[in-house]
Amino acid sequence: DPNLKVFSLNSNPDLAKQIAEHIGIKLGKCIVSSFSDGEIQISIEESIRGSEVYVIQSTSDPVNQHLMEMLIMIDALKRASAKTINLVIPYYGYARQDRKARAREPITAKLVANLLETAGATRVLTLDLHAPQIQGFFDIPVDQLLGVPTLSEYFMSKQLDDIVVVSPDHGGVTRARKMADRLKAPIAIIDKRRPRPNVSEVMNIIGDIQGKTCIIIDDIIDTAGTITLAANALVERGAKKVYACCTHPVLSGPAIERIQASAISELVVTNTIPLPEDKKIDKIVQLSVAPLIGEAIIRIHEKLSVSRLFN
Amino acid sequence: DPNLKVFSLNSNPDLAKQIAEHIGIKLGKCIVSSFSDGEIQISIEESIRGSEVYVIQSTSDPVNQHLMEMLIMIDALKRASAKTINLVIPYYGYARQDRKARAREPITAKLVANLLETAGATRVLTLDLHAPQIQGFFDIPVDQLLGVPTLSEYFMSKQLDDIVVVSPDHGGVTRARKMADRLKAPIAIIDKRRPRPNVSEVMNIIGDIQGKTCIIIDDIIDTAGTITLAANALVERGAKKVYACCTHPVLSGPAIERIQASAISELVVTNTIPLPEDKKIDKIVQLSVAPLIGEAIIRIHEKLSVSRLFN
Ligand SMILES: Nc1ncnc2c1ncn2[C@@H]1O[C@H](COP(=O)(O)O)[C@@H](O)[C@H]1O
Ligand SMILES: Nc1ncnc2c1ncn2[C@@H]1O[C@H](COP(=O)(O)O)[C@@H](O)[C@H]1O
Repeated sequence: DPNLKVFSLNSNPDLAKQIAEHIGIKLGKCIVSSFSDGEIQISIEESIRGSEVYVIQSTSDPVNQHLMEMLIMIDALKRASAKTINLVIPYYGYARQDRKARAREPITAKLVANLLETAGATRVLTLDLHAPQIQGFFDIPVDQLLGVPTLSEYFMSKQLDDIVVVSPDHGGVTRARKMADRLKAPIAIIDKRRPRPNVSEVMNIIGDIQGKTCIIIDDIIDTAGTITLAANALVERGAKKVYACCTHPVLSGPAIERIQASAISELVVTNTIPLPEDKKIDKIVQLSVAPLIGEAIIRIHEKLSVSRLFN
Repeated sequence: DPNLKVFSLNSNPDLAKQIAEHIGIKLGKCIVSSFSDGEIQISIEESIRGSEVYVIQSTSDPVNQHLMEMLIMIDALKRASAKTINLVIPYYGYARQDRKARAREPITAKLVANLLETAGATRVLTLDLHAPQIQGFFDIPVDQLLGVPTLSEYFMSKQLDDIVVVSPDHGGVTRARKMADRLKAPIAIIDKRRPRPNVSEVMNIIGDIQGKTCIIIDDIIDTAGTITLAANALVERGAKKVYACCTHPVLSGPAIERIQASAISELVVTNTIPLPEDKKIDKIVQLSVAPLIGEAIIRIHEKLSVSRLFN
């Protein structure tokens, strides 16, 4: 369909290329660069009048740069008479600022939703929002894909025995349950408690992990503090081997160092955020969500249900 | 008035301090920092419920970072029940993307106006917008101060003889006329023309500059190409001495090198954009607009006319 156009901005050029290949089209031509003073310059190099446009961009680090690229691109598309402007945001940044945890804090995840709508977005496709409530921050349709199917498939292909899927906290149990169902495995939960203020946390493990192969699953791994402490606790309590996995490999600050030093034998992530060269270490396996996103774009464009992709 | 609060973000901390001193209050307490992954974290450290809040921030380089700081601050202030949120934007970035110069270009100056209003801004105070039309991009009140009075005062104190105020292009004649009136001097205009495509520009000078002291005035000096070529042309045609001045010293890329090598004997700028250490060269004099902005804030807060500050 010549009315379907896919554009890539600067966060995920490889993923965008793979998505276009999956759909069987060429990426739209546009130049996204900077003026001498750092202001973003965008120029769309082909007509998009009346087109259904998909823009692929994660709001990953540098998050403010990536977000402004997206906003300016939406503005340019709107003024060039695109019929629909569909944002594909594999990783939705600022998702952890989704509530006022303390007085006088911003709710930046909601602010970003408002900014994208103000600029002119008509639909959002994303993966594993840190909080499902963020869908409700938008007044336009939001489809959420999950990393679990892609991650589970990988572990199934490894044909591991005696697996337990582990949630690193109580908030992640639903996600762990979804993976456990696919792998036909039981789950365990890490229950962190601080007995008294200024006393270090106690890692209690709910579920049987003795002699088992554990797979810890989380949505985001950022500084990797939680996941590496969890992995070490599991091994201390008798786990045979510990894998970890997540959808969004933020991996900031001390993350790589911590992962290297930890009991994690392999960390499996997706490419919602690309790994720069210095983060491509032997312990990390990166899987592509391009087939999943490509399929979702085809289904949205053909007005079919996207939730089918979850089964 | 305890209901008047002034907060500084990260672009102009010194200017903000001077403004608060001029008004005779302390800067509001807030922490504007970054999480490990580069996401902005803002925390307002005092109650602002029911207050009239002024936020001081230029959208200068790094423009996207500075803009997001401002948007997130507005969100936090709004959710903390500020009565009014008044943005003091000494330098309004993205102002040169104020129209579709080519097909399928964004109009980022308008996008930014929409974003600021969506976040919750109720008023804007700024200096020398690159195009006065940008005031109309907002649906909230916009007051524009001018750099001309501050710059003119400096030149008056130098007691120069035989001055001509020079506009580097036809777009800047109104500004040059304003300064010339203050200095009781005539004006000249640099009239660049390209006789044929692919032939270099000819610098034609309209007005008498022979043996005169020229003061070139512009709103923004970015890479300093225009202004240094103009200065050299003036000296070639017999000017005795050439000063240059502008409100907004963007000074990106080759600017400092070009200024050093040019016929400009002194460049006078304001502090709407602070100069980093490597741009503080002997040829550049920086004047503070803190008294002007401080006075404007007092007048706005007391519901007096701001246009008085122009006379
Ligand atoms: N980029 C970030 N990096 C680290 N912590 C964050 C970030 N954004 C928000 N937070 C904090 O993370 C907490 C929310 O995380 P969670 O409890 O996992 O939903 C809040 O206290 C936020 O202040
Ligand atoms: N940050 C920037 N640096 C250099 N040129 C720019 C910038 N932003 C916009 N422009 C271009 O500058 C021109 C407008 O400048 P002007 O004619 O001075 O209003 C347009 O052609 C823009 O594409």
